[in-house]
Amino acid sequence: MLMNGPNINLLGKREKEIYGEFTLQTIEERMTKLVEKHGGELDCCQSNHEGELIDYLHQANEKSYTGIIFNPAAYTHTSVALRDAIAAIDIPVIEVHISNVHKRETFRQQSMLAAVCYGQIVGFGMDSYRLAALAFLVSGLADS
Amino acid sequence: MLMNGPNINLLGKREKEIYGEFTLQTIEERMTKLVEKHGGELDCCQSNHEGELIDYLHQANEKSYTGIIFNPAAYTHTSVALRDAIAAIDIPVIEVHISNVHKRETFRQQSMLAAVCYGQIVGFGMDSYRLAALAFLVSGLADS
Amino acid sequence: MLMNGPNINLLGKREKEIYGEFTLQTIEERMTKLVEKHGGELDCCQSNHEGELIDYLHQANEKSYTGIIFNPAAYTHTSVALRDAIAAIDIPVIEVHISNVHKRETFRQQSMLAAVCYGQIVGFGMDSYRLAALAFLVSGLADS
Amino acid sequence: MLMNGPNINLLGKREKEIYGEFTLQTIEERMTKLVEKHGGELDCCQSNHEGELIDYLHQANEKSYTGIIFNPAAYTHTSVALRDAIAAIDIPVIEVHISNVHKRETFRQQSMLAAVCYGQIVGFGMDSYRLAALAFLVSGLADS
Amino acid sequence: MLMNGPNINLLGKREKEIYGEFTLQTIEERMTKLVEKHGGELDCCQSNHEGELIDYLHQANEKSYTGIIFNPAAYTHTSVALRDAIAAIDIPVIEVHISNVHKRETFRQQSMLAAVCYGQIVGFGMDSYRLAALAFLVSGLADS
Amino acid sequence: MLMNGPNINLLGKREKEIYGEFTLQTIEERMTKLVEKHGGELDCCQSNHEGELIDYLHQANEKSYTGIIFNPAAYTHTSVALRDAIAAIDIPVIEVHISNVHKRETFRQQSMLAAVCYGQIVGFGMDSYRLAALAFLVSGLADS
Amino acid sequence: MLMNGPNINLLGKREKEIYGEFTLQTIEERMTKLVEKHGGELDCCQSNHEGELIDYLHQANEKSYTGIIFNPAAYTHTSVALRDAIAAIDIPVIEVHISNVHKRETFRQQSMLAAVCYGQIVGFGMDSYRLAALAFLVSGLADS
Amino acid sequence: MLMNGPNINLLGKREKEIYGEFTLQTIEERMTKLVEKHGGELDCCQSNHEGELIDYLHQANEKSYTGIIFNPAAYTHTSVALRDAIAAIDIPVIEVHISNVHKRETFRQQSMLAAVCYGQIVGFGMDSYRLAALAFLVSGLADS
Amino acid sequence: MLMNGPNINLLGKREKEIYGEFTLQTIEERMTKLVEKHGGELDCCQSNHEGELIDYLHQANEKSYTGIIFNPAAYTHTSVALRDAIAAIDIPVIEVHISNVHKRETFRQQSMLAAVCYGQIVGFGMDSYRLAALAFLVSGLADS
Amino acid sequence: MLMNGPNINLLGKREKEIYGEFTLQTIEERMTKLVEKHGGELDCCQSNHEGELIDYLHQANEKSYTGIIFNPAAYTHTSVALRDAIAAIDIPVIEVHISNVHKRETFRQQSMLAAVCYGQIVGFGMDSYRLAALAFLVSGLADS
Amino acid sequence: MLMNGPNINLLGKREKEIYGEFTLQTIEERMTKLVEKHGGELDCCQSNHEGELIDYLHQANEKSYTGIIFNPAAYTHTSVALRDAIAAIDIPVIEVHISNVHKRETFRQQSMLAAVCYGQIVGFGMDSYRLAALAFLVSGLADS
Amino acid sequence: MLMNGPNINLLGKREKEIYGEFTLQTIEERMTKLVEKHGGELDCCQSNHEGELIDYLHQANEKSYTGIIFNPAAYTHTSVALRDAIAAIDIPVIEVHISNVHKRETFRQQSMLAAVCYGQIVGFGMDSYRLAALAFLVSGLADS
Repeated sequence: MLMNGPNINLLGKREKEIYGEFTLQTIEERMTKLVEKHGGELDCCQSNHEGELIDYLHQANEKSYTGIIFNPAAYTHTSVALRDAIAAIDIPVIEVHISNVHKRETFRQQSMLAAVCYGQIVGFGMDSYRLAALAFLVSGLADS
Repeated sequence: MLMNGPNINLLGKREKEIYGEFTLQTIEERMTKLVEKHGGELDCCQSNHEGELIDYLHQANEKSYTGIIFNPAAYTHTSVALRDAIAAIDIPVIEVHISNVHKRETFRQQSMLAAVCYGQIVGFGMDSYRLAALAFLVSGLADS
Repeated sequence: MLMNGPNINLLGKREKEIYGEFTLQTIEERMTKLVEKHGGELDCCQSNHEGELIDYLHQANEKSYTGIIFNPAAYTHTSVALRDAIAAIDIPVIEVHISNVHKRETFRQQSMLAAVCYGQIVGFGMDSYRLAALAFLVSGLADS
Repeated sequence: MLMNGPNINLLGKREKEIYGEFTLQTIEERMTKLVEKHGGELDCCQSNHEGELIDYLHQANEKSYTGIIFNPAAYTHTSVALRDAIAAIDIPVIEVHISNVHKRETFRQQSMLAAVCYGQIVGFGMDSYRLAALAFLVSGLADS
Repeated sequence: MLMNGPNINLLGKREKEIYGEFTLQTIEERMTKLVEKHGGELDCCQSNHEGELIDYLHQANEKSYTGIIFNPAAYTHTSVALRDAIAAIDIPVIEVHISNVHKRETFRQQSMLAAVCYGQIVGFGMDSYRLAALAFLVSGLADS
Repeated sequence: MLMNGPNINLLGKREKEIYGEFTLQTIEERMTKLVEKHGGELDCCQSNHEGELIDYLHQANEKSYTGIIFNPAAYTHTSVALRDAIAAIDIPVIEVHISNVHKRETFRQQSMLAAVCYGQIVGFGMDSYRLAALAFLVSGLADS
Repeated sequence: MLMNGPNINLLGKREKEIYGEFTLQTIEERMTKLVEKHGGELDCCQSNHEGELIDYLHQANEKSYTGIIFNPAAYTHTSVALRDAIAAIDIPVIEVHISNVHKRETFRQQSMLAAVCYGQIVGFGMDSYRLAALAFLVSGLADS
Repeated sequence: MLMNGPNINLLGKREKEIYGEFTLQTIEERMTKLVEKHGGELDCCQSNHEGELIDYLHQANEKSYTGIIFNPAAYTHTSVALRDAIAAIDIPVIEVHISNVHKRETFRQQSMLAAVCYGQIVGFGMDSYRLAALAFLVSGLADS
Repeated sequence: MLMNGPNINLLGKREKEIYGEFTLQTIEERMTKLVEKHGGELDCCQSNHEGELIDYLHQANEKSYTGIIFNPAAYTHTSVALRDAIAAIDIPVIEVHISNVHKRETFRQQSMLAAVCYGQIVGFGMDSYRLAALAFLVSGLADS
Repeated sequence: MLMNGPNINLLGKREKEIYGEFTLQTIEERMTKLVEKHGGELDCCQSNHEGELIDYLHQANEKSYTGIIFNPAAYTHTSVALRDAIAAIDIPVIEVHISNVHKRETFRQQSMLAAVCYGQIVGFGMDSYRLAALAFLVSGLADS
Repeated sequence: MLMNGPNINLLGKREKEIYGEFTLQTIEERMTKLVEKHGGELDCCQSNHEGELIDYLHQANEKSYTGIIFNPAAYTHTSVALRDAIAAIDIPVIEVHISNVHKRETFRQQSMLAAVCYGQIVGFGMDSYRLAALAFLVSGLADS
Repeated sequence: MLMNGPNINLLGKREKEIYGEFTLQTIEERMTKLVEKHGGELDCCQSNHEGELIDYLHQANEKSYTGIIFNPAAYTHTSVALRDAIAAIDIPVIEVHISNVHKRETFRQQSMLAAVCYGQIVGFGMDSYRLAALAFLVSGLADS
């Protein structure tokens, strides 16, 4: 599953010098293709609501997802509730950020979620999502 | 180039529950294969000396490397000198960690280097290196 | 009224070593019985949405509830908005936690809500809810 | 547009010694009149949901609003997501507070939003809204 | 066992607006009755001396108490020695506070003892003690 | 009364990208006109001396001013003495800032004076003064 | 009453460069004379036990003392229990220190007791006690 | 010499619940009488200007004053310059406060000056000055 | 002299995985033997009372002890009064800890006493005491 | 221009072990000679008043000074107003300190001014001024 | 093995009032004798290079050392890399300091290494090393 | 002696907008000329290794250098070991920085070395070195 947090729906429309030209739709389409090419399936969702994102994580827990690629955006830095939700489910979650958050405001350098995620991929633009997908898809990455 | 920081030479010999079974040699061999498969070349180095790692970064700057995959290990959290070295060279550096540092001691959650690196890949075991290599090798990852 | 915050709907399904075997449904049923036995009535609700919890508190204010038993879960530590909502209504609120939050991560030891609640009951498992109900139901507890 | 955050819907019903006697309805009516008198139009909305407020900001971005008067209430102090939303849109936002937040609890003295808003007006009761409207409406205030 | 810490012997004689009208004697008498009614027995003690309270805890450990109800008062916030004593004994301890400590000075919001107690009951006046007793006495509280 | 603090006399001569093109003289003239148009009178003063600004506040207290518009500039962040002076007088003071101080250095985000002022208006350029005047002048702003 | 805290019994025997040559006995004798000369009476006590000092304060409350001169020594900086005891009694307490504590270690610059005492006299050697006595004895000091 | 800092000239005119009814003039007159009664002389000065207070301290250094009684008011908490001035002169300075500063805002509990003064007298209203004078005047206070 | 602080009397009865199997009695017997073998004498004491430990230190000062071996246990981290007592006496004190306190809670990593003790020996189980004794007993340890 | 801040006028009269034997007059004379020898001119001023120092900086801005040598003394650590004044003028300012401030109290190690000055010269006694002058006077210092 | 960190090679040549008269050579010779007397062997090394010290620890791991006596000197307070090296090897390490570091600068009171060492011996001069050796050499120290 | 720390060997090749156009070689040549012109001699060294820099300082101590000009670069902010090395030698060290470190990241504003150096010269580009040399070379700078 591919989950995106608050304001990611504005991608490609806002602050392009930070986030690049691509839109959320482009990301979701390209990611779907990438996953299908490897014989998998991808569900996509985005929400600006913390509670809705928690609901999605709970629902994911009841399906047989291999993993969740999650860009929690602003909620990365403030949400204990999402942290608890990720800790409560059995599916591994990879935290993904488009921009290098460590180059930005101080408060963006603390992640409430990192300690309960499987791993983090930060700063590669749209490729952050792709690398996360590869981490899940390819059992032996060296063969890819 | 693949660079590894202090104590990584003990990999596979120490604290396997944190770092896994593989040795530094295994990593370097597999990574070399992966890179060569994509038509590239890989130089490998490891040092326990902060100054030596700075020297390696300076030398890299005079060759035509595409990029540097760097696991700075313990120096991640303390070295302003490595930060300055990375900022001073033109080659993009990807910061890589084997374990999810955010699950460990508080002092491991601060990176002096993150702000001057191109991106970070954290917590995927040996795959952290592989993903970093793919980020450099494949111009269009979706095609891989 | 009995209110439960984010992720409590997963109770009995997740991290049982921390939260015990019982589910949210069990809690709500047993609590309803307990309250009815004392001649009272109990409304139950749960939400993962901070805003929805605020709405519930506002609605409660317009009914003649004796009190609110509230397990705010993760929002305990981050929500100024819930704090304002509790301060704004006339019904006394008892803050309840299933686990002993003081044994867990440091950030769980600060409560944004405690100062505006009537009291706190922490660490008694499902009995945390029962004790809170008794505090409301029995005017002279010594007689119980 | 006039946006109000969590618990503002209780205005005039709660803590009158802090927030005064007027209700949200009164504010919206008087503000609409004031704006219309200057030949403008005013849309009003209020929500207790952080995500909904983000949605409103996104929608505003697609209409031709001159500006947004925003009392973010409790979310002022905790919401990175609203900060990102304000930074992402092109319409100037004025942050407004009814009470003088600097006289209250310490945590109310930090604003996550101030740095991305156009300006702040704090402590004038209902007049905080009016002054914000005038800031937008009157090109040459001296002439008013 | 019912233990009370420093200054609790002044109860009913000092700061009644915070602690209420009842005296320590009243609390001990009523609590004894409550416990006896449930077929139990209650030992009571109070001391202004940190060391004496530690001694009491050690002595309790050698008797067959079901549990200890402990209002550590001011030592809650400063005593590592009491923390160690509670951790060292096998009898569960419930931390009890008459007033809502979270409404008072900042230094009263940190408890050195909470992490090693079984649970906390805070802010219910004399009922804080009663609720703690019920937590110990009634195996199935719903039946009470 | 219109009071301006240290370095405001350089306005229009220094750092125009932050403070705009207008000079202190322009501000004082336009403000005087604005106030006179509403049938009032305006005294103006500026000083680089903390003590002199205190003296002005004391003198104001002995005249029948309706209010004081005060841009304390750098003393905003450091002066306990000005805070005491404002608290000691009966005339309401509005704190005004030309630039959005929250966008600048961290130390500019703390105001020693805000808690004792009537309100704050921040970030509207020269209009910050005008809005403050309107807050004092117009009893029913909606009628303006 | 004249109360002295921990280690004051060593006065004149230890660290004379900080505390001077006089002993506790000398202080108590001279203070008794001074008080008697003004027609009063003085009880003296000293203890190294925090609990005992609390007991003394409670006992004082039941006698008709005019006031208490208290040098809490090391407990100044750590004792919430003494703070509560002073707040709980009706007799005014003057906090006294022989040496200028502000010239010493940082942790000696914070007093847990100052906020609940009537006043503080710090740094005058044996005269700190005398000045405190005068504050109580002489209704019109100017006449002395 | 008797020196008073910023806003003390408003004494008896402002915030009487904190500072009492007496004016600066009354203090200076009574203190002069008290000193003359003991055969001494008293110079008095007050200023709202930090620099002027420094000038007074420098001038005092060139006269044969026995000591300086100094109420630095708000500058107590912020002025390194006054600290340096006191440290630089040979005359002992007693820091005096009318109200018990430890009962007020947190920032009033830190004194930049205490470490370089001879002693502090805090919280005795007008008697704070009298006690300071006695400390200087009477070589053997027990005889007074 | 061998002094032990709070809860050490429970040794061998509590938390054996941290403190080992031996009891206080065993320690005291073995230490006495060790000291006597080197021709010395050993007095032993233990108390849970901070004040009593201070009394012991004062009494020690009046005897001709060579040194004091002191395990202050929990009071290590909180007691300014013990610090003052150690600083006030002439006998060198060695601070001893059974467990490696640096592996435990953060608050155990700060010692109020270390700066006034002669040295520290930490983490050697019962051998911590033995090493401390040897430090005192053997003038030329190399010869032992 | 050579500017000196508070208490520098006492140089040579106070704390000679820190600041040396020379007076302000000596400094000004020697500096004038040095500058004249290089064909320049030197204006000198000193003030204990923060506001006056700001005035001097403003006046300097209207003359054609090459640069300003400024020893801000105690105001270094507290004055935002001087920082703004230096930032507002076009003349480069060199911050100078006679003593090595880093060897003294912690609060002297933070400079509010350093970030807006051209450079700092610290710890060379009277030579701090001379080196600053040379930095301005000699275009090619190597030739001197 | 006996390892010494940076600047220890200057021992006996520098700051003798802190570290004593003896040189590194003396320490190594006396320690070798002490160990040999107990039938053991001692390897000695010293380095100013953090990386070299890490190399030594790695090499030690491949030999059959009973233990390592390590004075990490300045690296105690800053080196995460040495911490990782000690944690990675199987040989117990005793941290040793010649002087009582708790009496010196604040930054010397934090040890990055203590939590992964077996124990610490601090403040006994050259005897710190001897005591550490005894801790390793003598199985039953009481017999020594 | 002229010592340069990590990354200074890249000077003129990296970040020229911060450090200027000149190379390390240019600095060393010009400095040598400057020193020789004043009849002195200059040894130059640079290293990226903290340990090597410590070695250089130790070696310097055995020669008859007048002084050391040291640009510690990144090690300024982290190295306790270099601090100890400077404190341990008898030759005065002047700390030099090319750029104004106070204008850069917060962590660059703290110097571990400043307190043990003779003085600091910061922000003058290559002239920082020249001024440091002059401070050593010219006994009477006014004569230069």
